[in-house]
Amino acid sequence: MNTDTRQVLEALKSGDISVDEALLKLKTQPFDDLGYANVDTHRAIRQGIPEVIYGAGKTADQIVGIMESMILNGQDRILITRLDKEKAGAVSEKKPIRYNEPGRIAVYGEKPVPNGIGKVVIATGGTSDIPVAEEAAETAEIFGNEVVRLYDVGVAGIHRLLAKKEIIMDAGVVIVIAGMEGALASVVGGLADCPVIAVPTSVGYGASFNGLSALLSMLNSCASGVSVVNIDNGFGAGYMATLINHMGK
Amino acid sequence: MNTDTRQVLEALKSGDISVDEALLKLKTQPFDDLGYANVDTHRAIRQGIPEVIYGAGKTADQIVGIMESMILNGQDRILITRLDKEKAGAVSEKKPIRYNEPGRIAVYGEKPVPNGIGKVVIATGGTSDIPVAEEAAETAEIFGNEVVRLYDVGVAGIHRLLAKKEIIMDAGVVIVIAGMEGALASVVGGLADCPVIAVPTSVGYGASFNGLSALLSMLNSCASGVSVVNIDNGFGAGYMATLINHMGK
Amino acid sequence: MNTDTRQVLEALKSGDISVDEALLKLKTQPFDDLGYANVDTHRAIRQGIPEVIYGAGKTADQIVGIMESMILNGQDRILITRLDKEKAGAVSEKKPIRYNEPGRIAVYGEKPVPNGIGKVVIATGGTSDIPVAEEAAETAEIFGNEVVRLYDVGVAGIHRLLAKKEIIMDAGVVIVIAGMEGALASVVGGLADCPVIAVPTSVGYGASFNGLSALLSMLNSCASGVSVVNIDNGFGAGYMATLINHMGK
Amino acid sequence: MNTDTRQVLEALKSGDISVDEALLKLKTQPFDDLGYANVDTHRAIRQGIPEVIYGAGKTADQIVGIMESMILNGQDRILITRLDKEKAGAVSEKKPIRYNEPGRIAVYGEKPVPNGIGKVVIATGGTSDIPVAEEAAETAEIFGNEVVRLYDVGVAGIHRLLAKKEIIMDAGVVIVIAGMEGALASVVGGLADCPVIAVPTSVGYGASFNGLSALLSMLNSCASGVSVVNIDNGFGAGYMATLINHMGK
Amino acid sequence: MNTDTRQVLEALKSGDISVDEALLKLKTQPFDDLGYANVDTHRAIRQGIPEVIYGAGKTADQIVGIMESMILNGQDRILITRLDKEKAGAVSEKKPIRYNEPGRIAVYGEKPVPNGIGKVVIATGGTSDIPVAEEAAETAEIFGNEVVRLYDVGVAGIHRLLAKKEIIMDAGVVIVIAGMEGALASVVGGLADCPVIAVPTSVGYGASFNGLSALLSMLNSCASGVSVVNIDNGFGAGYMATLINHMGK
Amino acid sequence: MNTDTRQVLEALKSGDISVDEALLKLKTQPFDDLGYANVDTHRAIRQGIPEVIYGAGKTADQIVGIMESMILNGQDRILITRLDKEKAGAVSEKKPIRYNEPGRIAVYGEKPVPNGIGKVVIATGGTSDIPVAEEAAETAEIFGNEVVRLYDVGVAGIHRLLAKKEIIMDAGVVIVIAGMEGALASVVGGLADCPVIAVPTSVGYGASFNGLSALLSMLNSCASGVSVVNIDNGFGAGYMATLINHMGK
Amino acid sequence: MNTDTRQVLEALKSGDISVDEALLKLKTQPFDDLGYANVDTHRAIRQGIPEVIYGAGKTADQIVGIMESMILNGQDRILITRLDKEKAGAVSEKKPIRYNEPGRIAVYGEKPVPNGIGKVVIATGGTSDIPVAEEAAETAEIFGNEVVRLYDVGVAGIHRLLAKKEIIMDAGVVIVIAGMEGALASVVGGLADCPVIAVPTSVGYGASFNGLSALLSMLNSCASGVSVVNIDNGFGAGYMATLINHMGK
Amino acid sequence: MNTDTRQVLEALKSGDISVDEALLKLKTQPFDDLGYANVDTHRAIRQGIPEVIYGAGKTADQIVGIMESMILNGQDRILITRLDKEKAGAVSEKKPIRYNEPGRIAVYGEKPVPNGIGKVVIATGGTSDIPVAEEAAETAEIFGNEVVRLYDVGVAGIHRLLAKKEIIMDAGVVIVIAGMEGALASVVGGLADCPVIAVPTSVGYGASFNGLSALLSMLNSCASGVSVVNIDNGFGAGYMATLINHMGK
Repeated sequence: MNTDTRQVLEALKSGDISVDEALLKLKTQPFDDLGYANVDTHRAIRQGIPEVIYGAGKTADQIVGIMESMILNGQDRILITRLDKEKAGAVSEKKPIRYNEPGRIAVYGEKPVPNGIGKVVIATGGTSDIPVAEEAAETAEIFGNEVVRLYDVGVAGIHRLLAKKEIIMDAGVVIVIAGMEGALASVVGGLADCPVIAVPTSVGYGASFNGLSALLSMLNSCASGVSVVNIDNGFGAGYMATLINHMGK
Repeated sequence: MNTDTRQVLEALKSGDISVDEALLKLKTQPFDDLGYANVDTHRAIRQGIPEVIYGAGKTADQIVGIMESMILNGQDRILITRLDKEKAGAVSEKKPIRYNEPGRIAVYGEKPVPNGIGKVVIATGGTSDIPVAEEAAETAEIFGNEVVRLYDVGVAGIHRLLAKKEIIMDAGVVIVIAGMEGALASVVGGLADCPVIAVPTSVGYGASFNGLSALLSMLNSCASGVSVVNIDNGFGAGYMATLINHMGK
Repeated sequence: MNTDTRQVLEALKSGDISVDEALLKLKTQPFDDLGYANVDTHRAIRQGIPEVIYGAGKTADQIVGIMESMILNGQDRILITRLDKEKAGAVSEKKPIRYNEPGRIAVYGEKPVPNGIGKVVIATGGTSDIPVAEEAAETAEIFGNEVVRLYDVGVAGIHRLLAKKEIIMDAGVVIVIAGMEGALASVVGGLADCPVIAVPTSVGYGASFNGLSALLSMLNSCASGVSVVNIDNGFGAGYMATLINHMGK
Repeated sequence: MNTDTRQVLEALKSGDISVDEALLKLKTQPFDDLGYANVDTHRAIRQGIPEVIYGAGKTADQIVGIMESMILNGQDRILITRLDKEKAGAVSEKKPIRYNEPGRIAVYGEKPVPNGIGKVVIATGGTSDIPVAEEAAETAEIFGNEVVRLYDVGVAGIHRLLAKKEIIMDAGVVIVIAGMEGALASVVGGLADCPVIAVPTSVGYGASFNGLSALLSMLNSCASGVSVVNIDNGFGAGYMATLINHMGK
Repeated sequence: MNTDTRQVLEALKSGDISVDEALLKLKTQPFDDLGYANVDTHRAIRQGIPEVIYGAGKTADQIVGIMESMILNGQDRILITRLDKEKAGAVSEKKPIRYNEPGRIAVYGEKPVPNGIGKVVIATGGTSDIPVAEEAAETAEIFGNEVVRLYDVGVAGIHRLLAKKEIIMDAGVVIVIAGMEGALASVVGGLADCPVIAVPTSVGYGASFNGLSALLSMLNSCASGVSVVNIDNGFGAGYMATLINHMGK
Repeated sequence: MNTDTRQVLEALKSGDISVDEALLKLKTQPFDDLGYANVDTHRAIRQGIPEVIYGAGKTADQIVGIMESMILNGQDRILITRLDKEKAGAVSEKKPIRYNEPGRIAVYGEKPVPNGIGKVVIATGGTSDIPVAEEAAETAEIFGNEVVRLYDVGVAGIHRLLAKKEIIMDAGVVIVIAGMEGALASVVGGLADCPVIAVPTSVGYGASFNGLSALLSMLNSCASGVSVVNIDNGFGAGYMATLINHMGK
Repeated sequence: MNTDTRQVLEALKSGDISVDEALLKLKTQPFDDLGYANVDTHRAIRQGIPEVIYGAGKTADQIVGIMESMILNGQDRILITRLDKEKAGAVSEKKPIRYNEPGRIAVYGEKPVPNGIGKVVIATGGTSDIPVAEEAAETAEIFGNEVVRLYDVGVAGIHRLLAKKEIIMDAGVVIVIAGMEGALASVVGGLADCPVIAVPTSVGYGASFNGLSALLSMLNSCASGVSVVNIDNGFGAGYMATLINHMGK
Repeated sequence: MNTDTRQVLEALKSGDISVDEALLKLKTQPFDDLGYANVDTHRAIRQGIPEVIYGAGKTADQIVGIMESMILNGQDRILITRLDKEKAGAVSEKKPIRYNEPGRIAVYGEKPVPNGIGKVVIATGGTSDIPVAEEAAETAEIFGNEVVRLYDVGVAGIHRLLAKKEIIMDAGVVIVIAGMEGALASVVGGLADCPVIAVPTSVGYGASFNGLSALLSMLNSCASGVSVVNIDNGFGAGYMATLINHMGK
């Protein structure tokens, strides 16, 4: 319940408005103002969280405009996802951002000191999965997580993964990112004793059907403790990992 | 590295075996002995966790046999999933179990005192989703979570859900279970500020295509902080919720 | 039965032609002349309705040619759908049109005074759905409806929708336009007590499969009073809304 | 805003509670009390409308129990859908119902005098589509529509449909029900000048893929003014037709 | 069994070669020479039939080269399918061809005098289907059929088709070409009493899924006497129609 | 134009009715009477053709009733498709039929003397395809074709097919019936120089997906002169073959 | 070219027949006689191989009849696949067979002494995959391979597989059988240095879509040296392994 | 077990390190060093095998860098797959490679003398399948196989294949590459008595659905001894053939 509601109630109490007028004001006051709001689909974990701008389909000017509005409102950390290199260049002429090219993601402001329960380990099956992984990694970092990158540990060379076994067993949350057959999620799910978030990628050709193969594979994981987000959704995985890694905070 | 490895090394140091013999022993020692074992696909969260038996495709006698073996090994809590009523009756003649008929799940032993970070709220779109929900609920309870059931709050009557908004906003983890269009996951995802696990169900007819519609809908949720498990996988959701709800423990 | 048929019958009665000649004339007279004709797939609601040109795959010159023919026949309102910006520019050099760029739709002639039963409310899940929404909106307006635009009220921030609840409850027809999980149709279907037309959009990525996810979701809506048109078919929704909103007229 | 809200505001004005107490009360007051409730997914068109029970998955006893509760609440018309013959027999021993066997639907209470704008014409492609058609017809009738049945007018014998052309052109709403190739929707859509609701059925074999063929066909109808509901969803079509046919009432 | 085989046998009989030499010759003689050969996948109907070159993926030079080889072998009619405009221009600088731009098909040589049993009527649902129709039409003509074009007679304006009913009833073979819902095949199948070949086209958007909708619709046609070729396969339809229309010749 | 129309015109000429009355009569006269009628979806090839009853979903009594009506109307040949053994027994107690058990098809009346252009050769890939083949064969025979059965000549043992090569090359029409990979259609299409009708069957398991594999395979046949009917549609193939084989008659 | 051909040629050379008579004989001699024959789809590897009977869809009597015919022809080993328990009982009353109930497969005759290059290792992901594995195992054994069974080594407990690493590294061929996510194929493919044959199974539920998930996963394996057979096709895998394991023999 | 492990053990034995230090060293030593390593997903068949670089998504500079590293490590044969012409040109300026343009594959170093058991025969259905075939052929050759190319022997002209029958019957392994209906795999599978590897290609249009049709067809092959790799995966087929053709070596 926010300031505006309080103002209505105080005006009522002070006799400045009648009960009917108060009723009317409350009725027409947007729910937006009642306190369950967050500006977009990214739910607030705690005060001070970054805002997120979905860059695809917006012009550099529009992005800068939104950033300015956010900064005016006191926001000091902004994440811009799905931002191509050219637009990133244009934005950076107006606002100081750090651009992660493979992840097509930009960050405005300093990364916070990590304050999650554990580390967020991000494992990929191959090097082609790195763009999605970097989107997840930057998201997790700007939202206050320590990230460990474990790239190119696909199951066809299982020793590569096993060599890093302790990193996985020490994780707070593991994000597994893989295309093609998506088998990495099951193997990691069997090794880890923490929640595993699987991200299928559209990497592959032929019968990978743009990520469908990895998606089905991950949904059917015979390991428990694995759940799945949309194909190529690195941001979603990073955000989900943040929620999990800040449980109780 | 376990006792056996130490024994090999000490034998080498003491001269009882040669370097080559030590090499051979290390090479042939099963990984099984190195310490990453867990008996089945259900990873240990901590000591004292229940064992799980997948009841489908096993006879009552086989289930009882497995239970006896587990009990002999000191296990005092066992969960039996996908157990039909008839087999549950046969099992209960041999072992004291509590059978949850809609959830087709049986529990041996007492539920532990909940020790998770928050509550696990289980919301279903309709009454037809309850079997999957009960599988999730029993799983979460036997694994040490307090469960709040919130059934039949589908989005076509959004007031029913909003009336329970505070239960959702107070949750540690929310499990959303819905068939047909699966829209509940997005709405709950927008209301909650905790991790949401979505379970599509095969409830529906026609273009629901045995849960495909709900599955795709949930994967495409425009709310952040939502991840998905397999169609009808109540156990998987309950287990994932447990892992999340015991973060840092 | 049209003038030509009458002429045949009168010629028969007057003895100018024989029964056999009349039979032959009637047999070879195209059905076209019997009165069930309308020039294209757009059925006439009443006299004075606009003509519609499907712009895709036609050159600017062809479009202008068709327009001229229509105008010669007394048509004073023409809608041109799926018209890209470049072609719209070329057309506008020859004919005065108003071009709606996001909706890729052009209007020739003045919008009529709305004479529908109620208002046509057009709600979108996100800003990316606006092109389809504008196609629907322009269609509904040129066909004589008052349109209320309610954009970006997706279910992940359900408060945004609820804040506009009264607009929905006051509608004559609601058109719901959403990609990704398409959940908006069910929520609106539960709030409204008027017919709801759902339009899945191809907005999204990964498992949205070019609109399939939203399409299945909307077909499986657990709300009654919702029906669905083809993916991205804003025109179809606007036209269907027109038919509904002019019931009995 | 309902009585309870008014009571809070009046208590505040009268000084019985403080601003903070008022804020708290408003915050915790369930949305349920704000007035957007309707008992289930079937939205009220006007007072006196029938209640609907989805019979599948409910026992005869459960159905009778729900009926008794409804009747106690003053309901004098109840529709029970997806009710198989055996359960219908059991229900009829307790309550006077009229059972439509092909449509697997039962009606309690008298059909009301039709008060829609026009007639609801229900056309089927073949005789195998009649069960879905009867579900639609009974629904439309109990909700206050005059229904005209036009069965077995599939497009492979187009003369059968054309012979009934005037019935279609005279309709207020047409419901087109067809399996296999679903072509009837397009042909009727071209003949009628009123809204057409298409219902694909799972009738067919081979490449009909349980209604997918008819569904896709209907969604792609080249006729305007056609929208689609779920496969075999006769009730949904009847309900949608009711909403359309009572526009402005 | 051809001349070469006879030569071997005669050489054997005359003692010029031994039994073993004859065995060896017969064994190594390509089946090609035994008489079941035809140069490519286009089976010979009778002497004098045209050769066909599939233009896609071949350079203009390659096409000219193949043509020259064919002409040298006495071929005086050549059909080149899937030939884009630019390549057609390059080919025409070397060889006199007639290029059908919408059908992306070129013809070398004169069309023969039609000698089929009846006429091949080619009907399309819309104007967008014309490219496929022209491919079918040119194919049928160069293979010796009289072709009647009946374009834009889609079922949403059934009168357009009925006005041409006699043309259809007079046909030897009808080729029906339609995208979107493909309903035209069923309606024509019901009107005609000759074989109907249906060609789904990839025309459409959204749930047409690149022709899948029309394909399924046509396969499920409730009219008898309809068979289907691949999506957009105008050549295949024209060739099949030729085989049918020359039955017994 | 039929007798009834003539009567109207003569009444007009004689002055018994006015022009307006004649107009009204003509307008309301069902198209049914104008002469394009055939009782069901099976189009007449010539006088004396059999009637067809689709047995699935009809009771034995209903079938007998329809037969009696047909026989009263002078019909002496009737085909009953999709008729299971039990119903066939019940029908045969009332009417003399010959029942083909594998093809689940019954014939009333004598087969006519074949009068087609050539023979209809029916080839199957395996013995499991025989039920569909027998449905096709009985259909073709009762409609006046000489049928040659060529069963179990699948391509994995290509010699079996080649040994019968001359039968295929001598055919008027070939019907190819195969499940699994459906390759037989292409091979036969390459050998034959007559029209080939391919029927995919639902025989197979795993990735045959109930006939989808064979269906796609046949549609993509690299042989020309092959067209496809619905999965398991033996009747449709037999009927199409009849139309082709009686071209010009 | 076989004896019969030689006989024809020698008859020609000796003057017993004329050239024309020789031509005729050669022409009509079935390809069957030319030497590429094998009785069914199971190609001969070498003399003495077993015959295979596909039991599904055959009666016990038919199976016994085929066996007797084979035995008369000197066959002393017969494999009967897809044979249910009841039919196996009936067959065993007539012929001495050994029935493998989980694999639904029966063997007549003694297993031969293995003479392959290496061992055929059969690994399954879970216990539910054992039926398919036993079909593969019995097939491989009767065809002369030493089989090592490695069941229930799914990747979610990777240690179980790694503990058996040396068995895999020692294999001649590995058959990997798994449902659900099918990840085992990739992991084994990475460990083994021999050919790996992957068999997806229809084990699983929900998004496993009857084996589709495992099938796609295996086709997309990021490990090289893995190829795939049809879902549940244990026989096919056992046969392919035999061909590979007898290379050069 | 490699040098490093031996060094640890010897240091322990010599007293240079303690048991605990040895344990620690072994524990942290990457599995990579324990001997199950292979640098990437391509498993070693024997010493001296080529390295493989997947060219797609790598710059020419990156490829050259990797090559230099490999050459420094003594590698004298390198295969670069999925390398487009432009990048091949850039690479060839730095390193001597032989570029196979249709196969988009480059080879560094000399092809080895073939030492497989038999020949690897590569058969394609059409000329459009040649790119995939060349990828397979170059792979097989650089890995030590004699390759026989048998292109354009599709089943629609079965004589073309039969003319080459002896080449197939003489093969050690056959790779069958085909798009569209993929029928070639079954026919070849029936002719050959060696292992057959089938590669579906994405060649085709319409209902070939980018290779899905050929994929399903090949998986459902009614011939035994056929297994399948991913769509367009020429490298995978060449590698699998190598493993098979070097069995026991």
